[in-house]
Amino acid sequence: MSEIPAEQQERESALVERVVASFAGTPDPRTRELVEALTRHLHGFLRETRLTEQEWKQAVDFLTAVGHITDDRRQEFILLSDVLGASMQTITVNNQAYADATEATVFGPFFVEGSPEVGLGGDVAHGAPGEPCWVEGTVRDTGGSPVGGARVEVWEADADGRYDVQYADDRVTGRGHLHSDGRGRYRFWAVTPTPYPIPDDGPVGELLRLTGRSPMRASHLHLMVEAPGHRTLVTHVFPRGDAYLDSDSVFGVRDSLVVDVHQQLPTTPTPDGRAVVGPWARIDFDIVLAPSSGG
Amino acid sequence: MSEIPAEQQERESALVERVVASFAGTPDPRTRELVEALTRHLHGFLRETRLTEQEWKQAVDFLTAVGHITDDRRQEFILLSDVLGASMQTITVNNQAYADATEATVFGPFFVEGSPEVGLGGDVAHGAPGEPCWVEGTVRDTGGSPVGGARVEVWEADADGRYDVQYADDRVTGRGHLHSDGRGRYRFWAVTPTPYPIPDDGPVGELLRLTGRSPMRASHLHLMVEAPGHRTLVTHVFPRGDAYLDSDSVFGVRDSLVVDVHQQLPTTPTPDGRAVVGPWARIDFDIVLAPSSGG
Repeated sequence: MSEIPAEQQERESALVERVVASFAGTPDPRTRELVEALTRHLHGFLRETRLTEQEWKQAVDFLTAVGHITDDRRQEFILLSDVLGASMQTITVNNQAYADATEATVFGPFFVEGSPEVGLGGDVAHGAPGEPCWVEGTVRDTGGSPVGGARVEVWEADADGRYDVQYADDRVTGRGHLHSDGRGRYRFWAVTPTPYPIPDDGPVGELLRLTGRSPMRASHLHLMVEAPGHRTLVTHVFPRGDAYLDSDSVFGVRDSLVVDVHQQLPTTPTPDGRAVVGPWARIDFDIVLAPSSGG
Repeated sequence: MSEIPAEQQERESALVERVVASFAGTPDPRTRELVEALTRHLHGFLRETRLTEQEWKQAVDFLTAVGHITDDRRQEFILLSDVLGASMQTITVNNQAYADATEATVFGPFFVEGSPEVGLGGDVAHGAPGEPCWVEGTVRDTGGSPVGGARVEVWEADADGRYDVQYADDRVTGRGHLHSDGRGRYRFWAVTPTPYPIPDDGPVGELLRLTGRSPMRASHLHLMVEAPGHRTLVTHVFPRGDAYLDSDSVFGVRDSLVVDVHQQLPTTPTPDGRAVVGPWARIDFDIVLAPSSGG
């Protein structure tokens, strides 16, 4: 801001301090910390960019549109947070790397409470269109010991790029949970993950178009793994070779979460003897849980 | 962030750079500048405060509530911008001091297009309850020459603290416009400004309560002055001695805009011979317009 006269800079920074001071009576110290930091960054943004009054008006209109499209089935503010990387940054800040524990990534808007228990080796696809995909691995702790009885929650889009909740009917497909066995082993049938666009018919989609960005998410399978004494892990498994690994619209990809998808011939016997029509695939993914106290 | 391990800081800043890089293909350079600065400040806020996942969720819920209460008659996002001082900072950034030109302040949400023309010496109150207040002054340029034919737009709350548009009926009171005469003189009847709270029954009111802040605005009269060749002035006149001058909920007060209100006895003759019942008041306020090219 070198071209701004000193007197003008003083007027601007005096206003920032006036706003910060207005929060001095906030009873809760953490709330005060948050509103003060919000004030400083918001004003920093306005001053650095020399935001015009017209642009300010456009920002108000944009946020209004985000608010108005948001309802019980669609959360456009989360989508906005996602495409700005704010969701992923929050995950990153709150899940520091701990030893060799599996890394976390975004939760996303498509988790639903109360998924069916499918049991070890069960089928979470439950009729969702897609290539059958066998997923298995071991849940262990950072000391290398297996974690038995860990709850493994799985959810994913179907081969048409949609989650069950995006259909108008009440189908429950592409989601379920199971528990690891005494050796920490887990296994289930799903469908091979495929890429899909985030909902882009609203203001966030408009933002992506205005900035030349794609709405596509890299293919992925959601996992949430919970076990007593361990930090709950919310993560994805990403198939290696996917076209969108470097341009995931919500910045969820981590190298450590990219795995090989082993394509199988229709004639190759399945691990559990299940009869499949056409080709199938398998993924091996071991999970390492940090302790609750970790990082 | 000195307590954050270097490796963790690297993960966080790598994410910021990844998000910024995603905007590299933005066709319009100004849009790119804005989304990049937004990204850096948003992530800076998340990293500095170590925002928790629960707090992130609360922020999403808060913005959702702001969006849902906003409609054609109520703009809670503008209110939010106002109480965070963002509206006033935008005004400040875009209206640098120029010679002795009258300072600008917030526009507010209560301006309405198409106010009645009341003529020189006319009554903008038009039945609004309140103490009659005569306002007069000269419009001139920064060279000291009078500006004739300047359009002077006035709007204000009544003595009950409400603008006409806040009533359910279709009244048009407390607003109007007139033009300065050949000597740059303007004059009109209004009501003496009184303090009032901004609408505080929504999420922004909740934020004010949570932070121990008052919703009260310092008493004021809105003025917008337009003349060809001059920068349009949007400002307020604030009566000296008002209880909220130091704690205006939207940070609109500027010392140069605080003026004496001269209280008059019921028996003192009015400037234009108008008969008034009870005490009345008068305000003298000269207006200096910057040139269109100024600052």
